[in-house]
Amino acid sequence: MTQFNDTELTAAVIQSFDRTPDPRTKFLLQELVKSLHDYVRRTDLTFGEWEVAIDFLTRTGQKCTPIRQEFILLSDVLGVSMLVDAVNHREREGATQTTVLGPFYVGEHPVMAHGADISPGLTGERMFVQSRVTDLDGKPLAGVPVDIWHADDDGFYDSQKASYATQGPSSRARFITDSDGRLFFRTILPCSYPIPTDGPAGDLVLKTGRHPMRPAHVHFLVAAPGYEPLITHVFIEGDEYLDSDVVFGVKDDLIATVENRSDAFMPDGQPATGPWHLMTYNFRMKPGEGTVPQPMMPEKAEA
Amino acid sequence: MTQFNDTELTAAVIQSFDRTPDPRTKFLLQELVKSLHDYVRRTDLTFGEWEVAIDFLTRTGQKCTPIRQEFILLSDVLGVSMLVDAVNHREREGATQTTVLGPFYVGEHPVMAHGADISPGLTGERMFVQSRVTDLDGKPLAGVPVDIWHADDDGFYDSQKASYATQGPSSRARFITDSDGRLFFRTILPCSYPIPTDGPAGDLVLKTGRHPMRPAHVHFLVAAPGYEPLITHVFIEGDEYLDSDVVFGVKDDLIATVENRSDAFMPDGQPATGPWHLMTYNFRMKPGEGTVPQPMMPEKAEA
Repeated sequence: MTQFNDTELTAAVIQSFDRTPDPRTKFLLQELVKSLHDYVRRTDLTFGEWEVAIDFLTRTGQKCTPIRQEFILLSDVLGVSMLVDAVNHREREGATQTTVLGPFYVGEHPVMAHGADISPGLTGERMFVQSRVTDLDGKPLAGVPVDIWHADDDGFYDSQKASYATQGPSSRARFITDSDGRLFFRTILPCSYPIPTDGPAGDLVLKTGRHPMRPAHVHFLVAAPGYEPLITHVFIEGDEYLDSDVVFGVKDDLIATVENRSDAFMPDGQPATGPWHLMTYNFRMKPGEGTVPQPMMPEKAEA
Repeated sequence: MTQFNDTELTAAVIQSFDRTPDPRTKFLLQELVKSLHDYVRRTDLTFGEWEVAIDFLTRTGQKCTPIRQEFILLSDVLGVSMLVDAVNHREREGATQTTVLGPFYVGEHPVMAHGADISPGLTGERMFVQSRVTDLDGKPLAGVPVDIWHADDDGFYDSQKASYATQGPSSRARFITDSDGRLFFRTILPCSYPIPTDGPAGDLVLKTGRHPMRPAHVHFLVAAPGYEPLITHVFIEGDEYLDSDVVFGVKDDLIATVENRSDAFMPDGQPATGPWHLMTYNFRMKPGEGTVPQPMMPEKAEA
């Protein structure tokens, strides 16, 4: 049969995937066809609008580089990333809440010593971060790798800056929890920032009258063997964008009170050089398994 | 509000597009959010599956070049292109049927003289093509540009070959209809061919147990002022893939009988150099308007 009306066409496309070897892949593809076709029919999509979509998707793919993932950003601003997070973490059982990975995860980093300054030379208000990783009963988990990354005082990640290729990571590190499940380090207070608006995803946000801002936060990826990998942020209380995060990533439980301190010594006994902030946030891990995400870039980053 | 369950999240994302200036854009985006979120919820999409999707879309975008459009190919193999065609051409009123543009349209070409051989130097069985462009009442339309492109005897388009950059178009041309609405030219008989399988779209087809073949056809794009642009193919009767075109593009009315001829002279009075084929297909244009598609490539082709 070659003469399809539009309903027969959809049935034929669904049927074309009948021989897909893996049942889950078959299900996902056939449901995708239903969703896509239903969308075209429901909107009576014009040829010109289809062209705009093809061009938009093409530019989104072409904007990706070893250190920029525009499709993740698009998924983020459409709330898809947070929804995937939600349907996969319906029951937390007291474990720390999860949120989006975001487009600036570029993979693991060399391990740094506790107390290290992960933002040397950067301007910004100084902050001491202390954390502890435990199981659901509060038992400390030792030897757990914890990846950290956050924006600088101008709202940029290291990987967004030209200096990244030559100078390597900044405000980005890995620590291994000590025998008491603890980690601590020095950095600067991140600030709220716009997602990149020089690509299709940011352009979409601006052209639809949305603001492009994310409230200030620090990313954490905690990967303890025998526990679900924990991908989350810690947000900073009082940020004006907590209620309107452009990627819908805020959860109440992830907002930390960051104290203003003027003590002469930081919690590890080392001297402070002026006023500083103290962020304290502990992570409770849920037993289980899962794969630690790999950065999804067109090619491996050089740095 | 920052603490979303998954239904509230969808509502918040839809609401975020409320200030979109253009009503149609707002509608399309809000319906897109509904479709995407419904898909994620319905399939309980895992984080790993989302990663596969991000990677797939990224590779699809990166595969696009000035002469290759992998997202159009993806749209084609998912039947989306034909569905967009269907919902935009529900009433033909006797006009020629439409079909997909396909990924090998690279824009207009220099005009050639009637009778020209558009495939000089190519191996293959010789074919003479004659056509006439009329309105719905059969009145000839003069001075109408008609773009033509088709695959060679090995199943490749010129733009798929390394020689394209230096040698320019082959089996690809533009003619202008004469005072009687006619055009005619020489070429070779195209054959059925696989879509490119060295990219994500073709890979999807192969991994799901589908064949990648398209039945033999010649593309036509007829753009007469005052009439809807006609994007179509003419298929060749008897092809084994007419019933299972990988892009679902065949319509019964678009299948032409291609005659085997051994006359010493072709219809324009010029001598034949051996057996040849005769393709005759006329186009009936529907009054209306529309934009002639522009090739959607990351950058303008050099050739």
